[in-house]
Amino acid sequence: MITTATICYDSDREIIEWIEWLSSFGKTQSDGVTRLLYSKEWLAAQNALANKMQEHGLNSYFDSVGNLFGRLQGTNDAKDVILTGSHIDTVKDGGKYDGAFGVIASLLAVSRLYKLYGLPKKTIEVVSLCEEEGSRFPLTFWGSRNIKGVYSNDTIQSLHDSEGISFVEAMQTCGFTDYPSQSPKRTDISHFVELHIEQGQVLERNNKQIGIVSHIVGQKRFNIIVNGESNHAGTTPMFYRKDALATAAYLIHYLTKSALEVDESLVATVGKISSVPNMPNVIAGQAEFTLDIRHHDERVIQAYCERIFSEFKRVEQNSAMCIELSQWMDVAPIAMHTQTNEWLEQLMLSKQIDYQYIVSGAGHDSQVFGSMCPTSLIFIPSKDGISHSPKEYTAPVYLQKGIEILMDLLYKLAY
Amino acid sequence: MITTATICYDSDREIIEWIEWLSSFGKTQSDGVTRLLYSKEWLAAQNALANKMQEHGLNSYFDSVGNLFGRLQGTNDAKDVILTGSHIDTVKDGGKYDGAFGVIASLLAVSRLYKLYGLPKKTIEVVSLCEEEGSRFPLTFWGSRNIKGVYSNDTIQSLHDSEGISFVEAMQTCGFTDYPSQSPKRTDISHFVELHIEQGQVLERNNKQIGIVSHIVGQKRFNIIVNGESNHAGTTPMFYRKDALATAAYLIHYLTKSALEVDESLVATVGKISSVPNMPNVIAGQAEFTLDIRHHDERVIQAYCERIFSEFKRVEQNSAMCIELSQWMDVAPIAMHTQTNEWLEQLMLSKQIDYQYIVSGAGHDSQVFGSMCPTSLIFIPSKDGISHSPKEYTAPVYLQKGIEILMDLLYKLAY
Repeated sequence: MITTATICYDSDREIIEWIEWLSSFGKTQSDGVTRLLYSKEWLAAQNALANKMQEHGLNSYFDSVGNLFGRLQGTNDAKDVILTGSHIDTVKDGGKYDGAFGVIASLLAVSRLYKLYGLPKKTIEVVSLCEEEGSRFPLTFWGSRNIKGVYSNDTIQSLHDSEGISFVEAMQTCGFTDYPSQSPKRTDISHFVELHIEQGQVLERNNKQIGIVSHIVGQKRFNIIVNGESNHAGTTPMFYRKDALATAAYLIHYLTKSALEVDESLVATVGKISSVPNMPNVIAGQAEFTLDIRHHDERVIQAYCERIFSEFKRVEQNSAMCIELSQWMDVAPIAMHTQTNEWLEQLMLSKQIDYQYIVSGAGHDSQVFGSMCPTSLIFIPSKDGISHSPKEYTAPVYLQKGIEILMDLLYKLAY
Repeated sequence: MITTATICYDSDREIIEWIEWLSSFGKTQSDGVTRLLYSKEWLAAQNALANKMQEHGLNSYFDSVGNLFGRLQGTNDAKDVILTGSHIDTVKDGGKYDGAFGVIASLLAVSRLYKLYGLPKKTIEVVSLCEEEGSRFPLTFWGSRNIKGVYSNDTIQSLHDSEGISFVEAMQTCGFTDYPSQSPKRTDISHFVELHIEQGQVLERNNKQIGIVSHIVGQKRFNIIVNGESNHAGTTPMFYRKDALATAAYLIHYLTKSALEVDESLVATVGKISSVPNMPNVIAGQAEFTLDIRHHDERVIQAYCERIFSEFKRVEQNSAMCIELSQWMDVAPIAMHTQTNEWLEQLMLSKQIDYQYIVSGAGHDSQVFGSMCPTSLIFIPSKDGISHSPKEYTAPVYLQKGIEILMDLLYKLAY
């Protein structure tokens, strides 16, 4: 049986007020949000959320790195924790929804369930994860990876932000002084649930209200340098040239074209390029570009890499130019919890909600939890797919639909 | 009859001393030369050259912009002037040969002819042109174009160098205060002869000592902007993308490939590229690149432009991305004097010199003179084709061969 909580508790105004309230901590001139890890704005937001949790009957507490939890003790099986939430930090001048909405939604969903049904059988905790974006320090998923116990004291000792403030100093300024002894690893979480904006255009283009995330993609990132020979643009015939930029252009064209041919879900992006000496009348001696590859199946990424790198090799041999390849990111794909997704699908059908399965092309805290416990990630549409921008927006009707589905799922898991 | 002056007057040491002497004005730490228009180094070099001219029996004088002439009055036809020389200015940290060797060679050739044969029938003038490169102010061929009478006071009024010094101020600092009244246009030049290093690898690769320049290429330069849509590299499927950089890469690949297909003498170069926002994990919303096209036949350039711009149009329509095209240079090809070249060819054959006809892919003062009087441009090899660099080098054997041919030609034209 599918238990649902369809009663509309919220006017659009109420949900907008919550979004605006949380975005006031770190609001920028462009109506965006800058709330970096261990900043004043970040601390104020976490403390304000802790108060909200208490007001709504949850027992709030911080762990040693600043993850904030709001606990609703289970009546039967208190040791098993259903954890739900997202992250509180933002990119610089980011939006009001990325992460933040997941935290608000979890708090609202749990407090409403509590009001409606009292204490759950299993313990539920709402979490406002301290960090996911990696915007202040060169480190991502600081919140969720500590809960998983992946990080240690060694990780952070040498880290500094762009202003030279050390990670440890920033953490201690916010009152988190215990970390050097141990990471706040947890072993009591039986399920993690995250509600998040899609940050893409797929749901909007397909007119879907809900995306059930089947996988979070794996990612590989490379730096590629083509070493040619700088020369005079007028006096060097085409057949004598070792034009690094023209060769890079061919490789970029080839790898872009190949992505769709290998698999329609594969994405390959060259976002950054530079050339030396970068002058209109000089043949480029060197060209450098990045390559970001993502798919939910490691084998597809592998097949794609083999295909394009074999072409790179062929070009290198034919052109007598050296092509250097260095990999600087390798993250495996993660599947979300299949049975729960099947249940969600039945829920959508019974509620006649337009939904679809979707692969998350962006990284999320759910990918960290996904390898430690059953994990569910639910998407709602992003207007024009825009994210990491003050223009980030999701209409209240989708925000409410997301909270409704989250309540249904938490009821199913904990009540 | 071909009159020749094959006697070897110069040891290798002497010609090297001349090259080193002139390069001492503006020598850089990397053993290159920086001698920008109206700089102290430039003025010192022109004054020293004026003294050398006097020492060698030439009557030296400056025109109102700083072109330096050394005159050998003709005995019969004094009004017709055979002008020979090149430019004295360099790029920043350039080489010792580009321009400078042409000035030295002309002075040596004329002084030797004078010693050997006395005064010529027609007047000969050696010229050290004040500026060709456009390295200090955004203006090229300042020397030759003034002699042609193309420039006027309006041209320079608003020009400043990178340190904010105005063109007029710089010129006046060197004592050239008369320009505002008139350009030093000349109408008495019956032939211009320039000896120059090739600045390319064609002669060296073909084992030729001398290149008879048939044409100086025409040039068109464009700026091309592809306007796509910036988006998340993970959440935007390939078929939804408007990837400006991937599209630019295809265009660059297409235009490079097409150049050789249209004509093997055509050169097309994309030397400069940029992308916005230029981040590894963001699809580029805009990509901008330059395009430099050169050929000695305007119709070939035209045909090539039609071909690639029609492909640009097709891509624009298929991709729904706007491609902006702006032209910022359009120089017509110029033919060197055919009869003189035929005579030079006969000379090479009679002297058993390995020579070839060659098209100059670089711009030279000869292209300015080429449209006002019969003009001859002679090339000698550049080691590895390197130019505009402290590594610029031509072996003394070629320098001497160049001077020898220049003497032959000047004898033919003026004696």
